[in-house]
Amino acid sequence: MAEIGIGMLGYAFMGKAHSNAFKKIAYITWPPPLVPRLVGIAGRNLEAVEDAAQRYGYEYATDDWRKLVDDPSIGLFDNGGPNALHAEPTIAAAEAGKHVVCEKPLGRDAAESYEIWQRVAATGVKHLCAFNYRFVPAVRLAREMIEAGELGEIRHFRGRYLQDWGDDPSLDTWRFDPDAAGSGALGDLMAHVVDLARFLNGEPETVTGFTHTFIPGRKVDDAVEATVAFANGSVGTLEATRFAHGRRNAFQWEINGQKASLAFDMERLNELQVFRADGDRARGFKTVLVSEADQPWWEFWWPPGHIIGWGETFVHEIHHLLGAIAKGGDVAPVGATFEDGYRAAEVCDAIVRSGETGSRERLSYRTL
Amino acid sequence: MAEIGIGMLGYAFMGKAHSNAFKKIAYITWPPPLVPRLVGIAGRNLEAVEDAAQRYGYEYATDDWRKLVDDPSIGLFDNGGPNALHAEPTIAAAEAGKHVVCEKPLGRDAAESYEIWQRVAATGVKHLCAFNYRFVPAVRLAREMIEAGELGEIRHFRGRYLQDWGDDPSLDTWRFDPDAAGSGALGDLMAHVVDLARFLNGEPETVTGFTHTFIPGRKVDDAVEATVAFANGSVGTLEATRFAHGRRNAFQWEINGQKASLAFDMERLNELQVFRADGDRARGFKTVLVSEADQPWWEFWWPPGHIIGWGETFVHEIHHLLGAIAKGGDVAPVGATFEDGYRAAEVCDAIVRSGETGSRERLSYRTL
Amino acid sequence: MAEIGIGMLGYAFMGKAHSNAFKKIAYITWPPPLVPRLVGIAGRNLEAVEDAAQRYGYEYATDDWRKLVDDPSIGLFDNGGPNALHAEPTIAAAEAGKHVVCEKPLGRDAAESYEIWQRVAATGVKHLCAFNYRFVPAVRLAREMIEAGELGEIRHFRGRYLQDWGDDPSLDTWRFDPDAAGSGALGDLMAHVVDLARFLNGEPETVTGFTHTFIPGRKVDDAVEATVAFANGSVGTLEATRFAHGRRNAFQWEINGQKASLAFDMERLNELQVFRADGDRARGFKTVLVSEADQPWWEFWWPPGHIIGWGETFVHEIHHLLGAIAKGGDVAPVGATFEDGYRAAEVCDAIVRSGETGSRERLSYRTL
Amino acid sequence: MAEIGIGMLGYAFMGKAHSNAFKKIAYITWPPPLVPRLVGIAGRNLEAVEDAAQRYGYEYATDDWRKLVDDPSIGLFDNGGPNALHAEPTIAAAEAGKHVVCEKPLGRDAAESYEIWQRVAATGVKHLCAFNYRFVPAVRLAREMIEAGELGEIRHFRGRYLQDWGDDPSLDTWRFDPDAAGSGALGDLMAHVVDLARFLNGEPETVTGFTHTFIPGRKVDDAVEATVAFANGSVGTLEATRFAHGRRNAFQWEINGQKASLAFDMERLNELQVFRADGDRARGFKTVLVSEADQPWWEFWWPPGHIIGWGETFVHEIHHLLGAIAKGGDVAPVGATFEDGYRAAEVCDAIVRSGETGSRERLSYRTL
Repeated sequence: MAEIGIGMLGYAFMGKAHSNAFKKIAYITWPPPLVPRLVGIAGRNLEAVEDAAQRYGYEYATDDWRKLVDDPSIGLFDNGGPNALHAEPTIAAAEAGKHVVCEKPLGRDAAESYEIWQRVAATGVKHLCAFNYRFVPAVRLAREMIEAGELGEIRHFRGRYLQDWGDDPSLDTWRFDPDAAGSGALGDLMAHVVDLARFLNGEPETVTGFTHTFIPGRKVDDAVEATVAFANGSVGTLEATRFAHGRRNAFQWEINGQKASLAFDMERLNELQVFRADGDRARGFKTVLVSEADQPWWEFWWPPGHIIGWGETFVHEIHHLLGAIAKGGDVAPVGATFEDGYRAAEVCDAIVRSGETGSRERLSYRTL
Repeated sequence: MAEIGIGMLGYAFMGKAHSNAFKKIAYITWPPPLVPRLVGIAGRNLEAVEDAAQRYGYEYATDDWRKLVDDPSIGLFDNGGPNALHAEPTIAAAEAGKHVVCEKPLGRDAAESYEIWQRVAATGVKHLCAFNYRFVPAVRLAREMIEAGELGEIRHFRGRYLQDWGDDPSLDTWRFDPDAAGSGALGDLMAHVVDLARFLNGEPETVTGFTHTFIPGRKVDDAVEATVAFANGSVGTLEATRFAHGRRNAFQWEINGQKASLAFDMERLNELQVFRADGDRARGFKTVLVSEADQPWWEFWWPPGHIIGWGETFVHEIHHLLGAIAKGGDVAPVGATFEDGYRAAEVCDAIVRSGETGSRERLSYRTL
Repeated sequence: MAEIGIGMLGYAFMGKAHSNAFKKIAYITWPPPLVPRLVGIAGRNLEAVEDAAQRYGYEYATDDWRKLVDDPSIGLFDNGGPNALHAEPTIAAAEAGKHVVCEKPLGRDAAESYEIWQRVAATGVKHLCAFNYRFVPAVRLAREMIEAGELGEIRHFRGRYLQDWGDDPSLDTWRFDPDAAGSGALGDLMAHVVDLARFLNGEPETVTGFTHTFIPGRKVDDAVEATVAFANGSVGTLEATRFAHGRRNAFQWEINGQKASLAFDMERLNELQVFRADGDRARGFKTVLVSEADQPWWEFWWPPGHIIGWGETFVHEIHHLLGAIAKGGDVAPVGATFEDGYRAAEVCDAIVRSGETGSRERLSYRTL
Repeated sequence: MAEIGIGMLGYAFMGKAHSNAFKKIAYITWPPPLVPRLVGIAGRNLEAVEDAAQRYGYEYATDDWRKLVDDPSIGLFDNGGPNALHAEPTIAAAEAGKHVVCEKPLGRDAAESYEIWQRVAATGVKHLCAFNYRFVPAVRLAREMIEAGELGEIRHFRGRYLQDWGDDPSLDTWRFDPDAAGSGALGDLMAHVVDLARFLNGEPETVTGFTHTFIPGRKVDDAVEATVAFANGSVGTLEATRFAHGRRNAFQWEINGQKASLAFDMERLNELQVFRADGDRARGFKTVLVSEADQPWWEFWWPPGHIIGWGETFVHEIHHLLGAIAKGGDVAPVGATFEDGYRAAEVCDAIVRSGETGSRERLSYRTL
């Protein structure tokens, strides 16, 4: 089987999630589209990177990501570094001819995101912005039902990503540093909400809203509140916060159509709530274990009813990318491409602007 | 036991709900603060009103609400008529010295609501705007927990009232007539959301958002979307719609505080979801059957675990009003007073204005 | 409208529940089959009975139930007294020509229950054993789905009635007195489980199991555990306990068929869980708000989504009985008749015998 | 890091689950107690085994398990073959000095299970019967709470394992062959129920019940129904079935204590329902995301709220075994040992006997 050399930037949370995916693809998806060969891993703390290299089986560790960019045996550069480190290494890797996957948010704002997209697209490599929640089986089932017309005309999309770890003034990570992170809940959580809104329901046209910081002196936003109107005529609310006590990873969304509704909560990511206005006297939302739903990724795993974990979304995501590389196909339709990463940033920026001006903001996207 | 004569305007949905409450108060709450004597019932369709009089035991039926206003044996005038019929009869009854309860929304907009409040308050009678969801035991438990400081500083209030009966162009009721109803989902559903937001979380300071109509030619709004910032520093989203397929009566709200969170769904109105950040290793939302919670209205009913229905909220509400009349006390703190009815209308109007202007709207309330 | 005079024995929990039903039938079910006239109420504590008479509007109170039996203006005798007081007054009332409703368990064991059934049936009056859970809309919907063949062949019935108030050695009520109650969780809770098992799934053929008492010195059972095989070929478990901490009124049952499954919890009595093996890719249990399900009793109440309470089961139950009296029809098919009361007792006795002998017990029912 | 050579018997469902575990232990648990080296894999279909060897990275494939037993580089023999193939290879491997893990049920009945335990224990190797549900974080949290006395005296254990794939007469796998499988739902599902009952609640003392086969001509049981009394004074029901439509992998159990209750469903294996009778006015079951609960296995995975899948239970299980091998400690307390495998078989056999004799069966266990 053909191999592809992997260069990984980042060894912490995302480094672990992506490395796990590379390792599992080699045997859980069988036969894999390409066999990942873990060539090199980079990060600032060399001791930690060396430990990660040993742990995950990378052939070498380095504290200079440029070594990965320069390594001809690397065919895919995976950027799981902090947001401030997305642009330069990703662009450099693409310009060195490597396919690239970059964690979200693509850039720290729309301008930086556009720059990354534009520069990378010009090289012709495959690019994927790691909105891994597109790769939750329930989300993909939802997308397929929507595309098949099972919901009819869409009336509402409402999405909120609720976490609760931020309500502590003593916290101090790069995620609160505006230079490193660009923003707070906005880029970290709202970007996911916007991406799934776009993936499931199409383009937003206008937004109103604002970002908000609860902790005095904190330099990034703690929460984002927005209303949205979509090009398809549907309307809704979008929300993201790190201050919803008791909600650890509650990315919840609901979509209401003329003929059906769907609802989801990431804390129960194996389930999709499905309502069909099908005339059955027994009318209500079904709790669908998506393992049952003839779901395209489920074949990798276990018999129905044996649930999968959050980590597997990365297996699906990178498998999708490797398939596009191997077959020469497109990263779309599941994506997300760097254009998707850029567009999410435009929507996030529009909410920020609305908060600053107090005015409804109309979306417009740049093209290449 | 002392009696109070009741004059009821309206015999349909709200006429039934209120008449049931008057009848049950006489024996379920024991001893009742005042025994309701069902004197007269009014409505436009005399035949239907006469049937209702026989059904509920009113001494007479009339197609002229002025007869109730003129009847000296009536001490409480209950206005359950369409929105356009709230102002004149309610004011007339109060000016005739009767205590008044009026269904929500108080008026069709803030100006009309203010007029009703001002005129009625000037008479000195007791007045209650029938936001019956204040009288759900779970909502009152929530209020008590918040007032006791169990949530700490509040970070978020998010509320949405989702129904699904509106997605049919052939529908034709007074609720779609702007003269009769004033508005659509706004006055019907969002008014409830705003009232509970105020009851639980205090005054909104700013809103952004808009109303939306899906059905071409329909003259009232089908849905409302808003963001909100409150005087207490919390932020959130507010939503109301008649287009959420599968959600029949899903008035859902969640409030996140520094120390605890609460969540609720009217389709399970006997339950409150309670999260406490209390250091217990076993951390999560409790599903609290409020019958258990030493809840002030529960003594009227059954042993814990034997749930009550939506209709009982009116029993609690009118019991509260009769208590205030009997004891000479205030309709507050549970309320809602006509001032609350007026303030809900101001918030609703502000959302409409925001939709029209595209700008963030700051709330300001008139006083007497 | 025709009236029927009511004589009520019992003024506490069941006296309140039944009196509420009589009062509501007169206006919530419209037109009522017969208008209940609350003639007399009896109980041992005269002061309490007199208070109840005033509260509910009975024309007189008495501490001698024979006065009700002798009163020619009473057409329906309602026995809500302790179990030891079921047989004699009920038989006497029937022999005096009154229709009778008696709380469950019908007698304290099968022999006493048979005696009541036999003696009452001989008089030709209508008789109803107050298994009110047959009158939960979700239970009736389940029965209708089963009768319509929507489940196919039945594989399993499992039922458990879990409460948690018994785990306190200091408790002292008539419910722990074997003479007054006959048994503990067996007659109080397991009788309900057995009745719904029979109502939904038909006759048990064999049982194994036992009763158990946790509190030393307590003279009635605290819990009952059983396996069961039914005449229709299905099998399952039956359980009842007052020692399930956190379960206040959790009468839960599930029925699995070849084509569909149903599940229920009395703490959410407005909901039925419905699974259909209908080939839909989106496969799962629906949470059906039964208010939506074109349910025969729902017309009495509110629009869909506005839930009803536990107390309303008695409204449905007595409405059903009054209909049978008014129209001369049968209390069946919804029932339950005194024969149903007797049969539940036979099954309960068989579980007791199995516990004593250690052997599987085969059911056999006596006939008139 | 020290290595241990792995010999795997079985390449299908369990072969995949265990191989995945061996591979993940090497990097998810860090540092691993021993690094698994995948030496050989055996099975009857050589082509399929060779494919599996390539997929998971075993050094060789064989259709003769004796080759694994004879291979000195193998230190741990993992038996994931059909039930009929548990005894001989497992005993042979142990007698060849290899540590052994064997899938459940240990043997096809108590006699065979005892033989395996006795023979293997005599060799002094570590032995683990792969009751992987002990390694669900929620189950371990439950065990820790019980051991810490947080539940007080236990009143009830009720367990049921509901699946729904069996209701099809055309099915034909080794699982329906009594020689290969020994039994149907009994060994496949009830063995799990019994094991967790023992793990959480201690030894059963008596059982009543029976096995049942729905499909004419099927030679193994489709369902098992039982009552149980435990040595600790608690009582309950036990059930297992492949005929519960809509329940794909619903291993549900509940345990009620004087001070707290716990409930669980394998279809939501990241959650534990926890009720504490702690006097909080807001009383109810918590939905605990066990990722939050300072759970000993969680450190391997992701931040709280990012759920894990069913497959990870095997990672925990084999990590536990490797730890015992590396440190020379005991496989207990989490286990399960082969003695646990034997004891589960004794309880299953007792239910079978009760069904045959119609009598209550008292448990007694053999010792070495």
